[in-house]
Amino acid sequence: MKFAISCKLTYQIAADSTLIFNIAVCNNRVQEILHEDLQIQGAADWDQHTSRELENRYLRVNAASGPLQIRYDATVELNAITQPPQAIAEVPLAQLPLEVLPYLYPSRYCESDRLLRFAQTEFGELVPDYSRVTAICNWIYENVAYLSGSTNTQTSAFDTATERTGVCRDFAHLGIAFCRALNIPARFVTGYAYDLTPPDFHAYFEAYLGNAWYLFDATRLVPRTGLIRIGTGRDAADVSFATLFGPVTMETMELQVDCLTPGQRPQPTDGAIAFVEPSRGPM
Amino acid sequence: MKFAISCKLTYQIAADSTLIFNIAVCNNRVQEILHEDLQIQGAADWDQHTSRELENRYLRVNAASGPLQIRYDATVELNAITQPPQAIAEVPLAQLPLEVLPYLYPSRYCESDRLLRFAQTEFGELVPDYSRVTAICNWIYENVAYLSGSTNTQTSAFDTATERTGVCRDFAHLGIAFCRALNIPARFVTGYAYDLTPPDFHAYFEAYLGNAWYLFDATRLVPRTGLIRIGTGRDAADVSFATLFGPVTMETMELQVDCLTPGQRPQPTDGAIAFVEPSRGPM
Amino acid sequence: MKFAISCKLTYQIAADSTLIFNIAVCNNRVQEILHEDLQIQGAADWDQHTSRELENRYLRVNAASGPLQIRYDATVELNAITQPPQAIAEVPLAQLPLEVLPYLYPSRYCESDRLLRFAQTEFGELVPDYSRVTAICNWIYENVAYLSGSTNTQTSAFDTATERTGVCRDFAHLGIAFCRALNIPARFVTGYAYDLTPPDFHAYFEAYLGNAWYLFDATRLVPRTGLIRIGTGRDAADVSFATLFGPVTMETMELQVDCLTPGQRPQPTDGAIAFVEPSRGPM
Amino acid sequence: MKFAISCKLTYQIAADSTLIFNIAVCNNRVQEILHEDLQIQGAADWDQHTSRELENRYLRVNAASGPLQIRYDATVELNAITQPPQAIAEVPLAQLPLEVLPYLYPSRYCESDRLLRFAQTEFGELVPDYSRVTAICNWIYENVAYLSGSTNTQTSAFDTATERTGVCRDFAHLGIAFCRALNIPARFVTGYAYDLTPPDFHAYFEAYLGNAWYLFDATRLVPRTGLIRIGTGRDAADVSFATLFGPVTMETMELQVDCLTPGQRPQPTDGAIAFVEPSRGPM
Repeated sequence: MKFAISCKLTYQIAADSTLIFNIAVCNNRVQEILHEDLQIQGAADWDQHTSRELENRYLRVNAASGPLQIRYDATVELNAITQPPQAIAEVPLAQLPLEVLPYLYPSRYCESDRLLRFAQTEFGELVPDYSRVTAICNWIYENVAYLSGSTNTQTSAFDTATERTGVCRDFAHLGIAFCRALNIPARFVTGYAYDLTPPDFHAYFEAYLGNAWYLFDATRLVPRTGLIRIGTGRDAADVSFATLFGPVTMETMELQVDCLTPGQRPQPTDGAIAFVEPSRGPM
Repeated sequence: MKFAISCKLTYQIAADSTLIFNIAVCNNRVQEILHEDLQIQGAADWDQHTSRELENRYLRVNAASGPLQIRYDATVELNAITQPPQAIAEVPLAQLPLEVLPYLYPSRYCESDRLLRFAQTEFGELVPDYSRVTAICNWIYENVAYLSGSTNTQTSAFDTATERTGVCRDFAHLGIAFCRALNIPARFVTGYAYDLTPPDFHAYFEAYLGNAWYLFDATRLVPRTGLIRIGTGRDAADVSFATLFGPVTMETMELQVDCLTPGQRPQPTDGAIAFVEPSRGPM
Repeated sequence: MKFAISCKLTYQIAADSTLIFNIAVCNNRVQEILHEDLQIQGAADWDQHTSRELENRYLRVNAASGPLQIRYDATVELNAITQPPQAIAEVPLAQLPLEVLPYLYPSRYCESDRLLRFAQTEFGELVPDYSRVTAICNWIYENVAYLSGSTNTQTSAFDTATERTGVCRDFAHLGIAFCRALNIPARFVTGYAYDLTPPDFHAYFEAYLGNAWYLFDATRLVPRTGLIRIGTGRDAADVSFATLFGPVTMETMELQVDCLTPGQRPQPTDGAIAFVEPSRGPM
Repeated sequence: MKFAISCKLTYQIAADSTLIFNIAVCNNRVQEILHEDLQIQGAADWDQHTSRELENRYLRVNAASGPLQIRYDATVELNAITQPPQAIAEVPLAQLPLEVLPYLYPSRYCESDRLLRFAQTEFGELVPDYSRVTAICNWIYENVAYLSGSTNTQTSAFDTATERTGVCRDFAHLGIAFCRALNIPARFVTGYAYDLTPPDFHAYFEAYLGNAWYLFDATRLVPRTGLIRIGTGRDAADVSFATLFGPVTMETMELQVDCLTPGQRPQPTDGAIAFVEPSRGPM
């Protein structure tokens, strides 16, 4: 399925500032960038960097005082790989690929080390496969209220576990923390989402099961088949869509995701959606 | 039922120190002190104070370096008032006696303000009467592991809600915090407990229902009919059995609670146990 | 000096709600209420309660859906007792009146138990008298930024010690926590403040020194001689000016404090301002 | 200078468990492994993995119930590169290599996002070069007490900033958090330390200055010239020397670091010690 993505961000800069963006979509085996265009107005200079392991694409913009406008457009072919979830088991610690271990450890917003008993109490008895991560998502959906503005950039999974309110990033952080507390590697993903109202950057998560990463979204806000990946990391600290250093005020954010494939649009699915690592062979 | 209580505490003092104890039992309409003896060896001086509203009895001991020994013995007649729990409703906020309001507000170890949605999600739909507080106790008993040494004096209900482990004071703090989050006034109680193994000071809580304070203990460690009250407060900050200022090391603690009434001993009960305020008329 | 206080609060109530106010000024030996008027429009019913020890005055308003308006006016004669600060020493723990002990213990927003070493490191070597509490206030003024909206009702002294930003209540909480960590009893005070811009309820604190409570305000926003006391408590949990239970939205708040004594107005002072307990004899 | 390292760890395993070790020294341009030997007794199986970017060496041991013994010996040639610190400036955000950005963001134990004002208040006015990180280390050394057992594996920089006590890992976390809060990339390093009493794994940190990573140790426990690197990461979550999954009890830990170069031993230095990235060319 083909998507047109458009992202326009405007800022007011009060004095020399640096802004780090992670808004360009990731190129990988399930999502191919057909066309891409980046327009920057008002910057002194800018450069780009793609991270080695996860191929996150960072854009640094240095800007003096005045208005700044970033415009990013892309056309992307997305071929989500959907599998029946029944056969996907958790991987025992003794057999996990050692390179996924970093996603087992606690991070800034996913203090899994403080949620061990909580996770064990709620999910410890469940069958150790794909359905257990689904149960985690269901628990979050049922017990945490989705409320815009109820949390801030310092809110972590430990807070959300008790305060029971948040937005997509908090839902993802809590899902990740629960997974890690159960020895399931899990990581944070950001993306553009088809059919998200109001339009915004979206966050969800992946769990490592059956030797691949599978996509989960506890918010149930959009079909998982319409998610176009931007960044992947341990939590929001790694792949915030914009990190601002200096006296910078966002003025407007306009996002649009259109489906270009005639007669098709992303549909909800009960299937498991697998991710193929960007720089490796087939799973 | 008549009880003999014996408490012997020994400390090593390295330099001039002050120790505040709250170990003397409270005198009130359900519990009468028949005999009492306090022996202090090794103190420079000491004085006592009974707090105005709650009649907590504090003992301040000033001691120079050397050994300190505190011995407290009491014989107490306890007449626990047990009622059928069925008829005891919560009191609507609009009708709560205004003097119980302080027990509705968050305190150091009972951050009810951060547990509103948690309490609402878990207990919000239950019938607003005695059985809801019982449900809170059951939840704590089932979801929090009783583990000596798993927490410290800084552990609060917010921590316990997620970390899911603690001792009697943590169980009480969490019960109190849940109650307050549901607009049920609740307070912390310490006491001597018949049949507690190993012998130790015990902590539990009271909730204000049907115009009286009712006793709850989520630990299920001892029969509630064998609890002899020492102190009452908002949380453990108010009625710690010993608060030490200075280089003081506890060496030994020996507690004993014997039932003196022939042929009787405290029995578990499903009844509601009401507290009569110390300095007031009948409820 | 004579002051006219006027407070007008309007709310929109969406469904049956209860509101607890602590906005009426306290009557005591340094501040006499000459005239007082309370007007409530839109309430189903209301009642009042004055707390036993501290004589805080609580107003409970039960209101159905619709607009609610509270108007409180008072004329107050304030005779602040100013003393030279030089002679005021801290009281050793061994000699503190036992009834002030509750103000030595940690509370919801003043976790002095977690600030012991911090306080000791920064202030431990200072002379144990009035000047040490002044040093605490200076430290807060110099190290914490006063920023409206930077904190919320869950922010505590432990947060402020590190986050270094807050409003008057945060400044007071941190001052209290530092004092308690140094074994100086301290408590939270709310009041109307002459010359506060923009007009708002104010919060400051008292420390127990030389056998009286002395008033401190680390914000330096107003002269301490123009503070008219409303409530006194362990922290903001006790004497919030308004605690709202139900779907209530504040619409407007209008406060005014005028000095009625011709030719006079509150002046900044370096003196120590002592509080006389409401219901007792002279200090 | 040549060092002999010996590490012997024994565990009691109660049931099938997995242990992840990061105890093998890192091979890089400043530290060459001349000889190495790993002996494992009591394991069902084990495997090793060297992480891609940082070349941390992880050892996974799967063990059934019974005793487990790990013995690691190495001979290492260490050529610490010492430079005069005067000429080393911080790198402005606008010019930082984009691949060091991950070390600018908050992590589990280094919540730099919550320490911005603290760092700005204490260190914001200092000259932005090597001396500022030295000032951070001095502040930590002077304000935080080194106390074994005063913290646990959940203690973070935010806690230490206020609680003012900790061990080497806490000192490192706080140094890292302060650096990041000032926009200086910083990361956590573990190692064997010559002359550490009692012998133990050590933790310190690196800050990115003048286009290289420079080593800092706020504990002042050992000469920085005698530190042999094991692991590098964002914080202790990445490079814990042992992460235990299962009912595992450590029984003994014996570490020894001997200097084999005749007539030499590591000396304290005021110089700056630079790290050369393992797999890259000269700085």
